[in-house]
Amino acid sequence: MARITSIEIEDVRFPTSLTADGSDAMNKDGDYSAAYVVLRTDGVDASGAPLAGHGLTFTTGRGNDIVAAAARQQAQHLVGRDVAEIAADLGGTYRYLTSDAQMRWLGPEKGVVHLSLSAVMNAVWDLAGRLAGKPVWRLLADMTPEELVDIADLRYLSDALTRDEAIALLRAQEAGKAERIAHLEEVGYPCYTTSAGWLGYSDEKMRRLCEEAVAEGYQHIKLKCGLDLEHDIRRARIAREVIGPDRALMIDANQVWDVEEAIDWVNAMKDFDLLWIEEPTSPDDILGHAAVKRGVAPVGVATGEHCHNRVMFKQLFQADAIDFVQLDAGRLASMNEIVAVMLLAAKFGKPVCPHAGGVGLCEMVQHASMLDYVAISGSMEGRVTEFVDHLHEHFTDPVVVRDARYRLPSKPGYSTEMFPGSIADYRFPDGAYWRERHEDAARAAVAAGTAAATVAERLAD
Amino acid sequence: MARITSIEIEDVRFPTSLTADGSDAMNKDGDYSAAYVVLRTDGVDASGAPLAGHGLTFTTGRGNDIVAAAARQQAQHLVGRDVAEIAADLGGTYRYLTSDAQMRWLGPEKGVVHLSLSAVMNAVWDLAGRLAGKPVWRLLADMTPEELVDIADLRYLSDALTRDEAIALLRAQEAGKAERIAHLEEVGYPCYTTSAGWLGYSDEKMRRLCEEAVAEGYQHIKLKCGLDLEHDIRRARIAREVIGPDRALMIDANQVWDVEEAIDWVNAMKDFDLLWIEEPTSPDDILGHAAVKRGVAPVGVATGEHCHNRVMFKQLFQADAIDFVQLDAGRLASMNEIVAVMLLAAKFGKPVCPHAGGVGLCEMVQHASMLDYVAISGSMEGRVTEFVDHLHEHFTDPVVVRDARYRLPSKPGYSTEMFPGSIADYRFPDGAYWRERHEDAARAAVAAGTAAATVAERLAD
Repeated sequence: MARITSIEIEDVRFPTSLTADGSDAMNKDGDYSAAYVVLRTDGVDASGAPLAGHGLTFTTGRGNDIVAAAARQQAQHLVGRDVAEIAADLGGTYRYLTSDAQMRWLGPEKGVVHLSLSAVMNAVWDLAGRLAGKPVWRLLADMTPEELVDIADLRYLSDALTRDEAIALLRAQEAGKAERIAHLEEVGYPCYTTSAGWLGYSDEKMRRLCEEAVAEGYQHIKLKCGLDLEHDIRRARIAREVIGPDRALMIDANQVWDVEEAIDWVNAMKDFDLLWIEEPTSPDDILGHAAVKRGVAPVGVATGEHCHNRVMFKQLFQADAIDFVQLDAGRLASMNEIVAVMLLAAKFGKPVCPHAGGVGLCEMVQHASMLDYVAISGSMEGRVTEFVDHLHEHFTDPVVVRDARYRLPSKPGYSTEMFPGSIADYRFPDGAYWRERHEDAARAAVAAGTAAATVAERLAD
Repeated sequence: MARITSIEIEDVRFPTSLTADGSDAMNKDGDYSAAYVVLRTDGVDASGAPLAGHGLTFTTGRGNDIVAAAARQQAQHLVGRDVAEIAADLGGTYRYLTSDAQMRWLGPEKGVVHLSLSAVMNAVWDLAGRLAGKPVWRLLADMTPEELVDIADLRYLSDALTRDEAIALLRAQEAGKAERIAHLEEVGYPCYTTSAGWLGYSDEKMRRLCEEAVAEGYQHIKLKCGLDLEHDIRRARIAREVIGPDRALMIDANQVWDVEEAIDWVNAMKDFDLLWIEEPTSPDDILGHAAVKRGVAPVGVATGEHCHNRVMFKQLFQADAIDFVQLDAGRLASMNEIVAVMLLAAKFGKPVCPHAGGVGLCEMVQHASMLDYVAISGSMEGRVTEFVDHLHEHFTDPVVVRDARYRLPSKPGYSTEMFPGSIADYRFPDGAYWRERHEDAARAAVAAGTAAATVAERLAD
């Protein structure tokens, strides 16, 4: 019998702002970061190694400490709990953590306390997978329809999807599961790359990266847009020239427009046969997205990386506001909420194309996409999962992408464990990397006889 | 020339859980708390006293430290800034603080980082009022339509309300301002009480409090509901019996129902001629509220205390989902966002009836309601502002309610300054009150030869 004996919460930040990776119209100087949760136990896994759960959520730098502080308060509730009992009632564990009235006031179910809950529950899912000796997608795919619905958070959804409908929907996919798993083992799950199109890249760099993506077999290219229409048109022209007429081109505005502005801007780019416009306006604006969808058709509308919970997704479906469901594995509160959203998407016939990139998101969403194909929607048609090729080297079970496809994860857990060395280097502010930057700043200040204002300020934040 | 020289952020918690004040179907053991921000300057106000701004947001206990930590990061940006420049561009100051991309990731514009931004900007508004020697409602009411629209956050609202429409709407109210101020000075602004109807109170206590409320002149009584239908019906019968047929009775479910359940429950209480059902379901469920509104008419739908920003309010109006606009002065990011919501409400013809209670919310929303009447909607018809009579003794300029009406605030600022002694007593965990509780717990543990689990755990959280 294993118990959770202690928790470790780490604020880990990678200095991605130094290279403009991840730049877009709304986010200009982020350091990709993870609020990282480890649940230690006194048990061992099937291989005899110490059993622990590792989970994270993704942020863009400052404020990662705030999310970590919230995760610490939430994870504390799990200390002393029996691991087998938790694993046997993952729905109950989730409901226990979400029903903390005082933390609910700070959301409810949104923002910092939901990001942090995601990190904590992601660690619980990793723990459950390791205990079962299965990757998380498989742990879920092996559940009966009833068991899977029991872990899904269906609260506030019954006007769109009842428990019975959800069970019927899952039951209809039961027969083909084994075949679909075999198919995934063979061909993997399609992905697309955002790495080519960051706003901070020069035209030349973007062209070269598009060419490389095509060479690597990608069928979809996404460009950041939204600061300057001429700039966007020039880049879209270059990209379309490189990828030809048969591959898909998408654009991503990262919330910069009001509704009418979004419609006008996207329509001004109609020549480029866009598959989707992503995050055209406020992520909270369900009715606004519906208006944009009507206004820019046949260009599709994609959103979700800032869609803060299943109730918002429910309405995006009810209002016919989106074409592509970009759920985020660090913003939704773990598989408990992701499964609910994937059930809704299946009912409304919308393809789930998860948001990824950042730190560890690719590692998590591959499990969501595989599960969706195997047990929920049963289809890969029109689906494509985001992939950004950076920071995977910090994970013990990193994603494997070959021929523009995620390969089926096979190791037990959620693929969310980071190497101890990575944490030691990038823990903020006292990891080896950041200590060196502090010392650099101090030396520079002495050398220049002045405060190295920018660096020092940033480190002091 | 005054500058902001330093900030102080306090985590202040009052032990309201000991008396079941504030209990409802979702929140059972909260300690009413304030994340409190002080902006110190090197200037003096008109009376020669040191000039400072005091702001807060309200939480229900645990997690108040998380909000305070976020407020500290946001307020830090104001240190060194010129007070007169800030006061001359309150819209720009707000936009500067909301455009921090890394903090936006944690929302955007919702949850912890929005609550904390509210506390910071509330302190800025208090500072601006003191600098001008005016209460905040008056500072705003004295602005021209253009100036008032400039401080309002209209981002993402243009599909519902353009800047020109907002100016026209304000201009139409210009002529009657002086007369309406005189009327407010004479009669005040109507309020209602929630103090009678907390869920944890016995029938006898509730009856007595209803009788007292009627004796004090209240025309509205609100009961918490949602845990047990028979219990709710019994309490509604008692309340209606006490208040008679001509006063208004409202119920408040604090988000416990799914959509269909809400409709059925409220319809089962139709005999009691309810004015509104408040927070029937998830505060994020705009379309759900619209369905409830259609399903329970003529009972009205009220919501807003958890409506996290102006974009959500915009959609509640666009979807015809609410009848009463219960904006919250600690959840919306200060007057910059409140004015935007009040402009939307005026355009859509919906009465603003702010949420209050907690700590300091009454002190703030009186300014919002007075401003709405004087300059924005120009009407008191069908409006009533919440009032709960507790914790006002901690404020240097507490609300004055006479004959069930808020009296017009006259002192400079936002009425949000707390006495230093209150902060010293209730600062968590090191204020005098909480230190004593720690010592009590330690003594009890020794006396009982066992850990005083509940108290100690709570204090350790």
